[in-house]
Amino acid sequence: MEEVKNQQVILKDYVNGFPKESDMLLKTSTIIPLKLPQGSNGVLLKNLYLSCDPYMRARMSKTQGSYFEPFTPGLPITGLGVAKVVDSGHSNFKKGDLVWGGTGWEEYTIITTPQTLFKIQDTDVPLSYYTGILGMPGMTAYYGFYEICAPKKGEYVFVSSASGAVGQLVGQFAKLTGCYVVGTAGTNEKVELLKNKFGYDEAFNYKEEQDLDAALKRYFPEGIDIYFENVGGKMLEAVLLNMRVNGRISACGMISQYNLNQEEGVRNLSSIIMKRLLVKGFIVSDHFNLLPKYMEMVIPLIKEGKICYIEDIVEGLESAPAALVGLFSGKNVGKQVVVVARE
Amino acid sequence: MEEVKNQQVILKDYVNGFPKESDMLLKTSTIIPLKLPQGSNGVLLKNLYLSCDPYMRARMSKTQGSYFEPFTPGLPITGLGVAKVVDSGHSNFKKGDLVWGGTGWEEYTIITTPQTLFKIQDTDVPLSYYTGILGMPGMTAYYGFYEICAPKKGEYVFVSSASGAVGQLVGQFAKLTGCYVVGTAGTNEKVELLKNKFGYDEAFNYKEEQDLDAALKRYFPEGIDIYFENVGGKMLEAVLLNMRVNGRISACGMISQYNLNQEEGVRNLSSIIMKRLLVKGFIVSDHFNLLPKYMEMVIPLIKEGKICYIEDIVEGLESAPAALVGLFSGKNVGKQVVVVARE
Repeated sequence: MEEVKNQQVILKDYVNGFPKESDMLLKTSTIIPLKLPQGSNGVLLKNLYLSCDPYMRARMSKTQGSYFEPFTPGLPITGLGVAKVVDSGHSNFKKGDLVWGGTGWEEYTIITTPQTLFKIQDTDVPLSYYTGILGMPGMTAYYGFYEICAPKKGEYVFVSSASGAVGQLVGQFAKLTGCYVVGTAGTNEKVELLKNKFGYDEAFNYKEEQDLDAALKRYFPEGIDIYFENVGGKMLEAVLLNMRVNGRISACGMISQYNLNQEEGVRNLSSIIMKRLLVKGFIVSDHFNLLPKYMEMVIPLIKEGKICYIEDIVEGLESAPAALVGLFSGKNVGKQVVVVARE
Repeated sequence: MEEVKNQQVILKDYVNGFPKESDMLLKTSTIIPLKLPQGSNGVLLKNLYLSCDPYMRARMSKTQGSYFEPFTPGLPITGLGVAKVVDSGHSNFKKGDLVWGGTGWEEYTIITTPQTLFKIQDTDVPLSYYTGILGMPGMTAYYGFYEICAPKKGEYVFVSSASGAVGQLVGQFAKLTGCYVVGTAGTNEKVELLKNKFGYDEAFNYKEEQDLDAALKRYFPEGIDIYFENVGGKMLEAVLLNMRVNGRISACGMISQYNLNQEEGVRNLSSIIMKRLLVKGFIVSDHFNLLPKYMEMVIPLIKEGKICYIEDIVEGLESAPAALVGLFSGKNVGKQVVVVARE
């Protein structure tokens, strides 16, 4: 039976505060057979692209009662990725199939519940897109913007983390809907991308603003109808002051809070009442039933060049810890992907 | 032409922090004719019952951009009340009609936009109820609980300011729906009312709790499905930690914040995401189109004794300033009403 080395990224121990590369360990010694154990009805995957996502920070802490199950120290980190089926004991999958879904940060992973994996039908687009625009972040932008915020032409849209895996899509969806959209990011390079690549009407670097409320008033003299919330904290506090009556806030992340031992307090919540705001949190995996509908919309847009997607791709599992950690200081430009293998 | 004295409650100046009785002035000298000016198409009202409501605090400040228009210093305070039409220049109203709606804190008021008034059809119930269970607070409880929170039998409901004008109804609506409902209030007398009069399953005095999170965990070991938000601040912060997945928060008031120059920060907003919460603010006057539907439901419940309503009634306009101020220290037990005249 063929055997292979299986390099892995291991979480050493639970993390406090900002995660560091040294919280993870690259383990190279494991040798595994390239075949499922006799009688398994799982699948053996060869991992191709791994996705670095902000929600993974929560899994690095041993938090009680969190929605996200903590990682297990000493075992490989798990996350979303694109993979090729090497061996299958499940009737839905056969050797050679391409899939995306939950997998391990390692070269090969056995998935014992393959029904959670999505089979990739369309390979006429970059495969890595299934970690981004065609995967979880894409569905997040779609569900949060269209389903929760129910945008109307001419409305004013504000996006934080606007060049990130989700934000770059929200901005483009907003333009396709005929909205006025402003984004914020943490470097001038990203601000340029927002305006020149993703079609944001305006963009600003929040790190260069002394007063976020004043910045928002400058970009939204009429106020904000829709806020796509990715950061929380002080940004949310300023946005609440600038929302319009009947505004909607779709909340899928609060990255500014993930590395704090105690969350910041957010003021101005009385705006929720005065302006009759809707604030709706969501976890996109609850809504994966809408994936086919989303694919039907977005794949033609990609192929016709009406939407673009920027990825920040690093090579090799050995680059994965730094890539993941970099998310929390905004090092990535666009969707952060790790290539484990290209086929 | 008959002339009458018109005693008035005047706001002396805009208020900072907690309002005091001395922020208002009782003016007794005005003499007015008991007839509308020639050609008026308004109505002249004799005020019977005036409503003291927490939202009125916002109108005592000169806040820019607030939903509620500030009062004008030197003029009578305005608010909701029950009144009798003394003279009418409007075809919808005739002398002797009973109405509720926006009026002045004085004995007689000319309303130039009588289309904003609601004609009282059912006089087989205490007239003062049109400041409470049959008026704005009743609709607030109805809309916030049924329309926003969409309660299901067996769900866990938490109500703050639970014995107040709105809260006492939310608790009873929750029991009628088959929910488990716990309320909180600020005195032991009110806690007894919650349990013995309004049928709350449990109730506690939040002023006697060192740790609101621990208190909520004691009363809701399974967590909270529905929170009817009347107070904001630290209570909201603790509630967020105890919400269940897919919970709903209906927000119509944050009384704990109204007298602060700067709002408190609220932590734990990331629960909105992790637990996929819906937080919806509303201003009940947006939804007065549902009044007939609500009346159809609630009037039989009152007449059959299936729902009760506690009022805290003080006599005379001279008692109005203290009654209004008392709301913010929780002095009132039940809906705070001022009787100006009984007919």
